[in-house]
Amino acid sequence: MNSWNAGSAKKSILDYVEKVTQPGSSSFINPEDRIAVFDNDGTLWEEKPFYAQVAFAFEKVKELAPQHPEWKATQPFKAVLENDFPFLAQLQLPDAVKILAVTHAGMTNSEFQRQVDEWLKTARNQKFGVHHTDLAYKPMLELLQYLRANEFKTYIVTGGGVEFVQQFSREVYGIPPEQVIGSAVVMNFIEKDGGYDFMRLPNIVQPIDDGAGKPVNIQRALGRPPVIAVGNSDGDLQMLQFSEASPHPSLQILIHHDDATREVVYDKGAEKILMEARNKHWTIVSMKDDFQEIFSKAA
Amino acid sequence: MNSWNAGSAKKSILDYVEKVTQPGSSSFINPEDRIAVFDNDGTLWEEKPFYAQVAFAFEKVKELAPQHPEWKATQPFKAVLENDFPFLAQLQLPDAVKILAVTHAGMTNSEFQRQVDEWLKTARNQKFGVHHTDLAYKPMLELLQYLRANEFKTYIVTGGGVEFVQQFSREVYGIPPEQVIGSAVVMNFIEKDGGYDFMRLPNIVQPIDDGAGKPVNIQRALGRPPVIAVGNSDGDLQMLQFSEASPHPSLQILIHHDDATREVVYDKGAEKILMEARNKHWTIVSMKDDFQEIFSKAA
Repeated sequence: MNSWNAGSAKKSILDYVEKVTQPGSSSFINPEDRIAVFDNDGTLWEEKPFYAQVAFAFEKVKELAPQHPEWKATQPFKAVLENDFPFLAQLQLPDAVKILAVTHAGMTNSEFQRQVDEWLKTARNQKFGVHHTDLAYKPMLELLQYLRANEFKTYIVTGGGVEFVQQFSREVYGIPPEQVIGSAVVMNFIEKDGGYDFMRLPNIVQPIDDGAGKPVNIQRALGRPPVIAVGNSDGDLQMLQFSEASPHPSLQILIHHDDATREVVYDKGAEKILMEARNKHWTIVSMKDDFQEIFSKAA
Repeated sequence: MNSWNAGSAKKSILDYVEKVTQPGSSSFINPEDRIAVFDNDGTLWEEKPFYAQVAFAFEKVKELAPQHPEWKATQPFKAVLENDFPFLAQLQLPDAVKILAVTHAGMTNSEFQRQVDEWLKTARNQKFGVHHTDLAYKPMLELLQYLRANEFKTYIVTGGGVEFVQQFSREVYGIPPEQVIGSAVVMNFIEKDGGYDFMRLPNIVQPIDDGAGKPVNIQRALGRPPVIAVGNSDGDLQMLQFSEASPHPSLQILIHHDDATREVVYDKGAEKILMEARNKHWTIVSMKDDFQEIFSKAA
């Protein structure tokens, strides 16, 4: 936890872990129930100016555009091709699904995984100019390691696509693909070229892994609430609430984007969780004050 | 593996594990990719005369019947109340969902878990007269332990309900709830009595975790194929096929119910997987010849 400044946030994390790992303590949690869940975008890595997966989808639309001349006059593709960010910022689900259908579906899962791998190696974040995987937050990587050293099992619970995040979770976060929970498209198991694969369809599996969908998907995957939950936006509110339902002592952590110099300042989309965090005295991490460094690699 | 008789099935398992865990061997598999998946009903425990979860549902219908006098004249409830097994053996999905709706939904998930726990402690298998959890197959418990001792991660992939199996997977099989993949009903996250819970709805999440649904759910949960897959019926065929898609050496095991004296003989519902197993030289386990003992506790 070297990249964390001394302060109340760091202290509350260290105190909690010490308390629940102390054999004989009334707060002791068996290692088998030490489960910590982390949101991804904005919690473990950078989410501005776009979610990485949205940047991936926009780049794929641009790559495919020469085969679709009609997109120049058809929304939402027109907005992507013209970088019409005001339009894209207001994108509604039916239009988002149209983009999803051509960038995340209509291909085998192996082909999708190949495209994600290639994109991760080449694409750069528009604001910071480095690869997306270099924009993991260094203090958060240390927190993941610290928890694992104390026999916590660390999970990602992302609104993003599960197959997208599984492609880099181990390399970037040390989290194996079986510890990633996320949104998904419908897939069919198929025979192909004498082997087996999946065909990805343009339909989203319900619930989307965001908001009240996160506890539902966690319960199904893990069979119980986590004891630590970490998020940064209103889409994480119910996940943090759900961790309070654990029979064990639990810890809720909110990452607050308040560093104008080194990252980006924003509370938009986090108003509800900030209010609940203050009311319930959850641990609020100030990126400005609590993070000695921000990114895993120099940005 | 003391309850396994010496023979080609036991040998093929031991040979496989030795080969893939030998450092320096060209067949070596890193521990992180040693993933073994097991069907539950008929593979890890008894599934006759009914799936345990079906017996649970029938008992719940009988418990609820006094509040529903109309059930005496309404199918499928009438058949359950009258033990009309020929009718029930032919039950179609819409009727099965009617039973599911009153026995597995319309209550909180905590209440459902409580009912499952209570039922497991009291109910007895109709043929063998002992608790269902006593009818785990002893050689299979040993196989799970043997694989874990060799750093395999063991998963259950069941057509049954994930929340049903998670209630006993650790105690009976040593498999934690987060390593159970199964069928599910739609749930909503709710606030209740100042805390949080889930309301269970009478809608089944697609795909049902059977047949071609098994590889889909495995891929989503684990991000890759398993290297060992074990099943006993046609509902496991695609799961065993999917394990062949692993880039590593893989092992497919079929449990064959051929012991008329100590268990039950049946090939019905396993015709396709038996044919594929023979064609592809998968490992076929004869319960009659390969199992020295059958059940985890005396039946």
